[in-house]
Amino acid sequence: MKRGFGSDNHSGVCPEILKAIADANVNHALAYGDDEWCARTTRLFKDTFGRQAEVYFVFNGTGANVLSIDLMCRSHHAVVCAETAHIFVDECGAPQRIVGSKLLPVATPDGKLTPELALSQMHGFGFEHHAQPRAISISQPTELGTLYTIDEIKALADLAHSNNMFLHVDGARMANAAVALGRSFREMTTDAGVDILSFGGTKNGMLMGESCVVLNPKLNEDAKYRRKQMGQLCSKMRFMAAQFEAYLTQGVWCRNATHSNQMAQLLYAELMKMDEFKQSGDYAILYPVQVNSVFARLPREVWTTLQKEYFFYDWDEAKNEVRWMCSFDTTEQDIHDFVNALKRIVRNR
Amino acid sequence: MKRGFGSDNHSGVCPEILKAIADANVNHALAYGDDEWCARTTRLFKDTFGRQAEVYFVFNGTGANVLSIDLMCRSHHAVVCAETAHIFVDECGAPQRIVGSKLLPVATPDGKLTPELALSQMHGFGFEHHAQPRAISISQPTELGTLYTIDEIKALADLAHSNNMFLHVDGARMANAAVALGRSFREMTTDAGVDILSFGGTKNGMLMGESCVVLNPKLNEDAKYRRKQMGQLCSKMRFMAAQFEAYLTQGVWCRNATHSNQMAQLLYAELMKMDEFKQSGDYAILYPVQVNSVFARLPREVWTTLQKEYFFYDWDEAKNEVRWMCSFDTTEQDIHDFVNALKRIVRNR
Amino acid sequence: MKRGFGSDNHSGVCPEILKAIADANVNHALAYGDDEWCARTTRLFKDTFGRQAEVYFVFNGTGANVLSIDLMCRSHHAVVCAETAHIFVDECGAPQRIVGSKLLPVATPDGKLTPELALSQMHGFGFEHHAQPRAISISQPTELGTLYTIDEIKALADLAHSNNMFLHVDGARMANAAVALGRSFREMTTDAGVDILSFGGTKNGMLMGESCVVLNPKLNEDAKYRRKQMGQLCSKMRFMAAQFEAYLTQGVWCRNATHSNQMAQLLYAELMKMDEFKQSGDYAILYPVQVNSVFARLPREVWTTLQKEYFFYDWDEAKNEVRWMCSFDTTEQDIHDFVNALKRIVRNR
Amino acid sequence: MKRGFGSDNHSGVCPEILKAIADANVNHALAYGDDEWCARTTRLFKDTFGRQAEVYFVFNGTGANVLSIDLMCRSHHAVVCAETAHIFVDECGAPQRIVGSKLLPVATPDGKLTPELALSQMHGFGFEHHAQPRAISISQPTELGTLYTIDEIKALADLAHSNNMFLHVDGARMANAAVALGRSFREMTTDAGVDILSFGGTKNGMLMGESCVVLNPKLNEDAKYRRKQMGQLCSKMRFMAAQFEAYLTQGVWCRNATHSNQMAQLLYAELMKMDEFKQSGDYAILYPVQVNSVFARLPREVWTTLQKEYFFYDWDEAKNEVRWMCSFDTTEQDIHDFVNALKRIVRNR
Repeated sequence: MKRGFGSDNHSGVCPEILKAIADANVNHALAYGDDEWCARTTRLFKDTFGRQAEVYFVFNGTGANVLSIDLMCRSHHAVVCAETAHIFVDECGAPQRIVGSKLLPVATPDGKLTPELALSQMHGFGFEHHAQPRAISISQPTELGTLYTIDEIKALADLAHSNNMFLHVDGARMANAAVALGRSFREMTTDAGVDILSFGGTKNGMLMGESCVVLNPKLNEDAKYRRKQMGQLCSKMRFMAAQFEAYLTQGVWCRNATHSNQMAQLLYAELMKMDEFKQSGDYAILYPVQVNSVFARLPREVWTTLQKEYFFYDWDEAKNEVRWMCSFDTTEQDIHDFVNALKRIVRNR
Repeated sequence: MKRGFGSDNHSGVCPEILKAIADANVNHALAYGDDEWCARTTRLFKDTFGRQAEVYFVFNGTGANVLSIDLMCRSHHAVVCAETAHIFVDECGAPQRIVGSKLLPVATPDGKLTPELALSQMHGFGFEHHAQPRAISISQPTELGTLYTIDEIKALADLAHSNNMFLHVDGARMANAAVALGRSFREMTTDAGVDILSFGGTKNGMLMGESCVVLNPKLNEDAKYRRKQMGQLCSKMRFMAAQFEAYLTQGVWCRNATHSNQMAQLLYAELMKMDEFKQSGDYAILYPVQVNSVFARLPREVWTTLQKEYFFYDWDEAKNEVRWMCSFDTTEQDIHDFVNALKRIVRNR
Repeated sequence: MKRGFGSDNHSGVCPEILKAIADANVNHALAYGDDEWCARTTRLFKDTFGRQAEVYFVFNGTGANVLSIDLMCRSHHAVVCAETAHIFVDECGAPQRIVGSKLLPVATPDGKLTPELALSQMHGFGFEHHAQPRAISISQPTELGTLYTIDEIKALADLAHSNNMFLHVDGARMANAAVALGRSFREMTTDAGVDILSFGGTKNGMLMGESCVVLNPKLNEDAKYRRKQMGQLCSKMRFMAAQFEAYLTQGVWCRNATHSNQMAQLLYAELMKMDEFKQSGDYAILYPVQVNSVFARLPREVWTTLQKEYFFYDWDEAKNEVRWMCSFDTTEQDIHDFVNALKRIVRNR
Repeated sequence: MKRGFGSDNHSGVCPEILKAIADANVNHALAYGDDEWCARTTRLFKDTFGRQAEVYFVFNGTGANVLSIDLMCRSHHAVVCAETAHIFVDECGAPQRIVGSKLLPVATPDGKLTPELALSQMHGFGFEHHAQPRAISISQPTELGTLYTIDEIKALADLAHSNNMFLHVDGARMANAAVALGRSFREMTTDAGVDILSFGGTKNGMLMGESCVVLNPKLNEDAKYRRKQMGQLCSKMRFMAAQFEAYLTQGVWCRNATHSNQMAQLLYAELMKMDEFKQSGDYAILYPVQVNSVFARLPREVWTTLQKEYFFYDWDEAKNEVRWMCSFDTTEQDIHDFVNALKRIVRNR
């Protein structure tokens, strides 16, 4: 398949990760997490997020998000989220089915919840006819490539806590947020009051491995049973832990995320050189380019023609909005080729 | 960790599988199964199980079993199984939670259901107060290392079908069954009337990858949504498909399973050389050794002392029954060391 | 408690219904629906809704709605509804928990879905990451007291069917709709293409009894098991059937609904005599008064003072919107007393 | 329908209950439990079971049992019960679906769990692959009409509590147990260490109304939301409370249960006058007759012929075992007629 900008999970595995898997392939190890790789990597997560942090490795982002919700909520609880949230849009109703909980989606201008927006769904406390708001869930970065500042996260954590609720962060691309903000994982989560975190690696060069990181110790009680019961307990878990170990200790997360963010900046810069994007009209870049994605609006004829050469998703077909994602392995050449193709199509209309 | 007989998922990954993963790590590929590795491996499953077979890759055995049950049943249905079945004992209630279905466990002498045993739970059809029997689930080989003959599978399939029910096979170790019986996967499943199959690879040398193979096309309708919604859809799926491709085309499944079965035979033979096991009494081998496990009864003092040197599971602590599993990488030396340790402990009592 | 306008389930039971219960209290009858009252009342529902209609009595509106959704949907399906729908707002997440399905709420000006509004949530068909739209659910009358014309219902049914979806009607107050429109139950449902209906009696003078009426025979298959499994199967069901028999054969539904609608008209007329409501401003009647409810906006100080005398719900506290419901037993005197109390409070500000 | 011995819910409603419903039919009352009848009856339950008791009215026995399990368990928990328990056999898998929990059925000689029998299912604590035993559930009286002594209940409560588990009692026919043992409800429950109770009225002369009585205050936290979400919150709840008020204050429970127990004794005595039952063989009374049921074994030809005249259930068709239930309205004449019919059939063989 032609290299492109469809998704950051269209890229493969970066070499350090593959090597870590091969290196872990020695002799026997207990299954289901009782091995030395898991022990080391668990300590690593504690070093990263704080001593009270407990990590639960899971297979994928849906697993991490649904386990997170499940640890915060019973079925009569509800989760406030942006209407663009992955948990609301892209998980085929997994939270509803597995947890039985209700999601309360809120329209946002840029994928970000604010206290004011969240408050619009926080009512009916104590009223048994209403699902009880129990958590706020945000994505950092958001599905639209925008970022919360640490103060914005703190404000949402405070709002949650003052209402006896929890704050969850979907960090499928948290590495991209960390390098963009120049802040540590801990500053963005534990120190900001986050209770539980989906911390991803797959989209940033790992083969397969996500995690649910419990920062609020109250949420640990049933975690190991809940993970098992939802089918997210890996048997040869050392191969998952080994990936995260390499990811966190060898600078993989930082280098990969820095690169994909830079590639998005380059893509943005190249697009802004086109006259069409300079004037806001049929052509536009939709949100600040803060991490590794660029959202654009352009004429239907243009993007559908471009899709014949490159696979990428229309984000909102009716509005002619599309998404272009950069990966840890995106090259400058990839970007120039892509923009040149776009220019050719525009020119030939 | 010391090499031992705790489980066939304590071993690592065999070289062909690791190589297949590395070889698949080229360029970009669509996520979620829309790639060339998945396309080729899907054809391979059709070659193996018959043209109508559809394979759904999942992360682990719980995923394969729960998806299988979910495709056969709605929540008011029930599944007849042996009381030793993995779905009943070892999945922390996943089928009950995820599908909402009731399991109807039956006591068996050797882990095997018979039509007569299954019939003991097949009643109340049409009576709304009773969960409706909808499927029979068997494990091939069973959790006790015993095997169904093909005729026995056919008899259960006929029983199921004549009652408007389905037959599911939990084949987490199906390769071991195939080499032990000298029959093809297809003969044991499609041709015997099996409707749906959990087909495993992880316990036989793969890194991570199981599958739900739908043999009865009626069960396909909602499969892709159900897999996604239960959190079992892999993003970089090419790395799962690539493992199965190597597994099925390079003789990996056969060589590995043949070896682990042979090692269990060697272990059994060495144990039977001990006077203690010759006489049935405190020491006994519990079931015919047909695949890669040996179940034994021996004095508590003996097995608990042995556990200080080797990790393995007591199977029924109260009855002093233990399980020893061989792996694709078990060596003859491993066995001699282990039996020598046992002999030493017995001698020193 | 003082008679008031809090809800149409604050009133008691009308005499014919109580008498029907007492009359059914003779000798023995089979439990769970196998009795002569159920047989007769089932025929009555077929006479009312058409020969193919099958009625399943349930305990309450949540039971009727959740069973309806459950017969249309599996957990990976989604239901498009108004964001004011009882199933979305007032059932504590029961559809999410019991069915596992996602609801897709749509903002509406008056509680009514239109094809255009419904279409805004009908996308992602065939895409496994998205819950699959499977049903449209409307309330007739709506929770805001507005009505769908029969043509409007037909248009939504056509839209649903042309997308392989079903149309559900929450008819907790369907009798009020029928008398307001001057159309039969059948014209509003079966003949308009409705697939399944929650048909209520409790709010219109029955003691306790709702029903799920399956109009599309495809939806019957598992109904009796699903009702039982969700705890909605009544043992002494004759007392539920007997209520519906009296309700449908003795003109109870029509007389009671006609009366409560008329009382709402009277309340509306009396309010509109007040200067405050004549001018649109702090005081307003919010929607056309079509059935037995009046929604009003009035100054906070006024409605909170009035609540000290009369129990009623604020509908949207932030917007100073309240709801006043009339019942089958509301009297003209009740209305004059209430409006006089309101006038007194307004005058004394 | 001919009066008979099919079930104690084939009888109707006793006069005091009907009168209480009619008496409660005055004016308006808040819905969903916020009325004076509920307030009074809640105090009555506290008087009956102890100050800490909280009662949650529900519609039926499945509702009471599933709510009880739901308050004790999350989905990864398991409930130990007799394999004859109503929750395991007769609720179409409702606990599995609604709570997601696993039931661990134990074979018993007479429907009664003992600590030894319960212990056989209490293992795997802390092992994430196993559903965690969290509750023991017993029925008092059992589904086989046998009774636990108070000491037997205490022993099970102690066993549960010493394992961090709860004890649930399914008391659908608890009144029959109370009069048979000559002990108060409180002595059998609160004082014996019971944590939560399904307390029934329908089978003993009420129209419709069961309750979940929380005796252990730790289990109250989410109760009102859980009841609502599972569709068990009654709107015109005064009519349910009023029934319980009459039931508990007017001696209804005691008189009705005493009578139905006596009728079972009479039936037993009359049967034992038959030569066939005197000798143990094809004819036998199966369990001690302690409450209002008689279980008998008799030749197939006999009981199937008797069923042509009288409706009753075969309990185990293969073993020719049947159940005969007496009701609050069973008369001595009913019994003589029934036994005469049986004698005639036996004589005419």
